Amino acid sequence: MSDTAGKTITCKAAVCWGAGEPLKVEDVEVAPPRAHEVRIRILWTGICHTDEYTRSGKDPEGLFPVILGHEGGGVVESVGEGVISVAVGDHVIPLYTAECRECKFCKSGKTNLCGSVRATQGQGLMTDKTSRFSINGTPIHHFMGTSTFSQYTVVADVSVVAVDKKAPLEKVCLLGCGITTAWGAVAKQQGIKGSSVAVFGVGAIGLGVISTASVNGASRIIAVDVNPRKEKWAKDFGATDFVNPTALPEGKKIQDHLVEITDGGLDFTFDCTGNTQVMRAALEACHKGWGVSTVIGVAAAGQEISTRPFQLVTGRVWRGSAFGGVKGRTEIPGLVEDYLNGKLRVDEYVTHHRKLTDINEGFHDMHGGECIRCVVDMA
Amino acid sequence: MSDTAGKTITCKAAVCWGAGEPLKVEDVEVAPPRAHEVRIRILWTGICHTDEYTRSGKDPEGLFPVILGHEGGGVVESVGEGVISVAVGDHVIPLYTAECRECKFCKSGKTNLCGSVRATQGQGLMTDKTSRFSINGTPIHHFMGTSTFSQYTVVADVSVVAVDKKAPLEKVCLLGCGITTAWGAVAKQQGIKGSSVAVFGVGAIGLGVISTASVNGASRIIAVDVNPRKEKWAKDFGATDFVNPTALPEGKKIQDHLVEITDGGLDFTFDCTGNTQVMRAALEACHKGWGVSTVIGVAAAGQEISTRPFQLVTGRVWRGSAFGGVKGRTEIPGLVEDYLNGKLRVDEYVTHHRKLTDINEGFHDMHGGECIRCVVDMA
Repeated sequence: MSDTAGKTITCKAAVCWGAGEPLKVEDVEVAPPRAHEVRIRILWTGICHTDEYTRSGKDPEGLFPVILGHEGGGVVESVGEGVISVAVGDHVIPLYTAECRECKFCKSGKTNLCGSVRATQGQGLMTDKTSRFSINGTPIHHFMGTSTFSQYTVVADVSVVAVDKKAPLEKVCLLGCGITTAWGAVAKQQGIKGSSVAVFGVGAIGLGVISTASVNGASRIIAVDVNPRKEKWAKDFGATDFVNPTALPEGKKIQDHLVEITDGGLDFTFDCTGNTQVMRAALEACHKGWGVSTVIGVAAAGQEISTRPFQLVTGRVWRGSAFGGVKGRTEIPGLVEDYLNGKLRVDEYVTHHRKLTDINEGFHDMHGGECIRCVVDMA
Repeated sequence: MSDTAGKTITCKAAVCWGAGEPLKVEDVEVAPPRAHEVRIRILWTGICHTDEYTRSGKDPEGLFPVILGHEGGGVVESVGEGVISVAVGDHVIPLYTAECRECKFCKSGKTNLCGSVRATQGQGLMTDKTSRFSINGTPIHHFMGTSTFSQYTVVADVSVVAVDKKAPLEKVCLLGCGITTAWGAVAKQQGIKGSSVAVFGVGAIGLGVISTASVNGASRIIAVDVNPRKEKWAKDFGATDFVNPTALPEGKKIQDHLVEITDGGLDFTFDCTGNTQVMRAALEACHKGWGVSTVIGVAAAGQEISTRPFQLVTGRVWRGSAFGGVKGRTEIPGLVEDYLNGKLRVDEYVTHHRKLTDINEGFHDMHGGECIRCVVDMA
């Protein structure tokens, strides 16, 4: 046991006090883990658009004050009663999609959307409906069950997975969200080998989709992005084509262009933008009879997707996935091994580094278009 | 060869001269079949909502004058050069979804949407871009490649299938559309056994879905219809529950009600209405993580379906099927055998009969709510 076990730890965390406010690095008190909870010393964390979505105030379910962050890597500092899934000293990745292995969802064998901690996670609390974070007695909300923008965080024991210590946490922290999400959305579908694929949005998720489609033998991978500077990345990760929708002749829809250049449409398309118009284009770019379009991006609240039902009746499938359909505790250790064996790209996503004190700069980096992922050094 | 082979046949047909007009029984000249065409003496035909949709003028792609009808049964009168798929005297069902076995679609193994005759079929013509129907020299359009509202019709050899002569054409003509569409939409999906199913719309298609789900071992089958008189049919065909959305408390959405009474939603839902709001309800009534909603109904032109993308990201799948995904030439003979062996209901769909001269009454029957299918005696 560490000498901090059972005690409240005071450490630095980036706190968002209200919708639209910048993060503020504060001294936060992190209570010890209760039963079936794990306290983790976070060493590295990525910054993802979902953090920004909540910070910005656009997320109507956002709660403040809050400690954001959900793409972290760290070391188990102490565990509460009954924890057997991880041990003190383990290198771990917190999971915003829990895996309890006991609920209806986990047992179904059909989905990764574990229901065990979902209700309280959505309330920014641990399962006993309290928070482990406070500042001068004021409780601070948890976020996505992970809150990795703190030097210490507490998570449910079903919301964390131990990984091989040989893997640098500075890199594999990204398996906590983006890379895994993209990998699963592609790798869990049958028939990618030899198929044509279009990927809308060349950010971290889009690049992960491109890379996984390439590794899985897709015959053609068309990357679509309005930023022409994304072409190089897309091709570095495995895209065979790059299309800029804004460079098409006026009035030409991207879906019509893609159907033309692919003799009828794509076998698989992926929305990695969160833009509902792009989601529609991705569906309609699919080949009649068998094209499958997967929504990965998260749309803003209240926005809806639409299309003519004829698109479905003539054989296109509209689906989506969250965290790539990946069961984190079961599958992430294997992804880490794939990374260590050179089968899964991770290093290439890290384009920027920031210190915790400069975390707001990391958010700016993300918007710049020159950043895939900014990883924050929490030490 | 019959003594009419090679000659134009003058016979009775129900012609629709313009959008919204009633059908008029006329003497029509039916030219002999050309190469790879088959002339069929139609003995029986069902009337389907798709016929009414085009007749009414709501179908923007409707062409007039036209001989409607696509759910027929008859006997091959003569064949054009090169026809080997059927022979004179065969009992046959015309297929509005062709099966050429040579095109990209047929060869894909992924869809029944054969592309061989689609372009000209949509123009109301045979593949040489002419019509076999005329009245006093005025060409009359074909419809859906079948035009079964004529005592004789000409179809492409890829658009017809021979069936066991033991099967009464008066009944199995319904395999030309409704029953097959419903059967395929259910039977071709994995996992129906032991699952919960909701069926929106208790017409011929809805009853076929209920029946097939029941035969395939669904554990619970909830029929949904605004007409309370449909409850008896639904339960006769295998439904375990019947819900009338208009009888719910004010403001209660049918999808929310269904999610409540099924502890989270249905495993499979089917839209058999063509109403885009119902299609949305059917999707949203699906269980998070794995529910699959299939659009079978055909929406009016210009109408769109919509939902929050969150519905897809959290694991629901939105798909559709046309003609149930069934390859008619390959699969309908087996369905006819299933019927003959008591494994597939057909007789129970026929609630009304009409003579060709009274075909407009058959359209009225369909609207009455007391009719599953009206079968027209073409003799």
